Amino acid sequence: MPGRYSEDELIARVFAPIAGPAALGLKDDAALIEASAEPIVATVDMLVAGVHFFADDPAAAIAKKALRVNLSDLAAKGAKPIGFLLSLALQSDWTNDWLAAFAAGLAEDARSYAAPLIGGDTTATPGPLTISITALGRAPRFVPRLGAKPGDVVYVSGTIGDAALGLALRKDPALASRLSPRARAHLLDRYLLPRPRLDLAPLLCAHASAAMDVSDGLAGDLAKLCRVSGVGAVVDAPLVPLSEAAREAIALAPNLLETALTGGDDYEILFTAKPDFSPPEGTVTRIGEIHSGTADAQFCDAAKKPLIFERLSFSHF
Amino acid sequence: MPGRYSEDELIARVFAPIAGPAALGLKDDAALIEASAEPIVATVDMLVAGVHFFADDPAAAIAKKALRVNLSDLAAKGAKPIGFLLSLALQSDWTNDWLAAFAAGLAEDARSYAAPLIGGDTTATPGPLTISITALGRAPRFVPRLGAKPGDVVYVSGTIGDAALGLALRKDPALASRLSPRARAHLLDRYLLPRPRLDLAPLLCAHASAAMDVSDGLAGDLAKLCRVSGVGAVVDAPLVPLSEAAREAIALAPNLLETALTGGDDYEILFTAKPDFSPPEGTVTRIGEIHSGTADAQFCDAAKKPLIFERLSFSHF
Repeated sequence: MPGRYSEDELIARVFAPIAGPAALGLKDDAALIEASAEPIVATVDMLVAGVHFFADDPAAAIAKKALRVNLSDLAAKGAKPIGFLLSLALQSDWTNDWLAAFAAGLAEDARSYAAPLIGGDTTATPGPLTISITALGRAPRFVPRLGAKPGDVVYVSGTIGDAALGLALRKDPALASRLSPRARAHLLDRYLLPRPRLDLAPLLCAHASAAMDVSDGLAGDLAKLCRVSGVGAVVDAPLVPLSEAAREAIALAPNLLETALTGGDDYEILFTAKPDFSPPEGTVTRIGEIHSGTADAQFCDAAKKPLIFERLSFSHF
Repeated sequence: MPGRYSEDELIARVFAPIAGPAALGLKDDAALIEASAEPIVATVDMLVAGVHFFADDPAAAIAKKALRVNLSDLAAKGAKPIGFLLSLALQSDWTNDWLAAFAAGLAEDARSYAAPLIGGDTTATPGPLTISITALGRAPRFVPRLGAKPGDVVYVSGTIGDAALGLALRKDPALASRLSPRARAHLLDRYLLPRPRLDLAPLLCAHASAAMDVSDGLAGDLAKLCRVSGVGAVVDAPLVPLSEAAREAIALAPNLLETALTGGDDYEILFTAKPDFSPPEGTVTRIGEIHSGTADAQFCDAAKKPLIFERLSFSHF
């Protein structure tokens, strides 16, 4: 395709402006992260067009999602970002404009989350656009997934299910048309753009016995946390925080409650803490308790009757 | 496809056995790297089937190449591996056997290079197999690419051009058939499996003013090193170390000398050092000098006549 950046131009014009000092101007083989007394937290997520996002989503939103799902993992471990390394396999029809918009999205998030680009690799692919981001952070205390204790209380941040419902609306325009414009916009936006809860990292470091981000669905992710911790959990489903928009969608189609609880892409924080922990007003919601029984997560309705889900979590695999 | 691992089985059976302690059994969202007094070096490379390797190459060789190209970057910076994070987008026809062979290759290299798996993400792709590896290491001193000084001597490790000639043989079976079986096997193997020069890391930390690994071709890579260092280089082409197999191929087709000098995939170390540096016998070869002139790399033949290359380096982009 004529008039496209060469690899050197791409680095100099598109990516170098996003780069932090550790990137050494993207002029070296590797990034240099100065030593510090805190341990390093490292996480990676790969996103494929048509699998993790729609290929025609805005380029800036694709970039932001790819970065944010990684920052969400850092947040769950109580870590503050150092920066990120980007691998980008560009589909054959990429244009300079598309790439400029992608980089602008990354740049905006790199600034607002204080997570600069520190290294990367760009290549061409005959397949779909594929993005792998490795995020590095530092944590005063690494908050493990394995650490929930019987008697602990289960909390989540934000609201659950919005992104999964947003995806359901993308797949079912008839359903989408029955929602109020405001609810529709809210759910679609929450699918497009996760909000990594980096603001909660200090609270998690100080108080959480175990934590993870909710990426594959609350029910399945809590089951994973229980399994590695060797404990069970009971969740009061009516306590799970839902947005107004999610309530509106579920009122229209009650089976969407299961979608909300198992659908994934929330990127909220699920964590456990001792019973005497009292969270600051409005930050997180108590949804259940940990017990010493079977290493599984049970969701109950208002009548304390167990909910049976068709599947516990979403899998792209 | 029936009888394929689920994502959880894949992690538990295939990847957990390769994992180091920092991976926390691959049961968490992120890896935990303990603090140390040495800075961290981070690098990433993405490989796409049909672009960076042949899709029908042995699975173990694909895995090894993906890891080794990253370890090569660490080596060039004087770093010792901590471990690596793997992103894997599996093509639709993957099988458990293919994946077991891929993991076995990774496991072998993780052991021999003391570079354990510390995290990862696996997904499916409708496109070609795509692998992104982020390698992390520690260096007593980060050896920059930007650091060559006028008067410095230019060195390379190993032999140059074998991998590029191996690729040429893969693309031209008629040429391959004219080589001795021994030379053919050598060149094909060097294309398939880079040898990261981690053994040279301490020497580079102690003596190199600038270093990089030769991945896109000696001529182009030296030009890059000169550009960022703001210096020029003159290389005596007859001093560039060639294997017996490469000499045999070049004798058959003299234009292959240019392929050897510009073709890439060497994964040897190119570095500069002060004139009083005297390398241990048999480790590296002196090929030229750095001067204060135009920031470019000039290759000269035995008669000191400049060689003009059609292109300086290989680009997958």
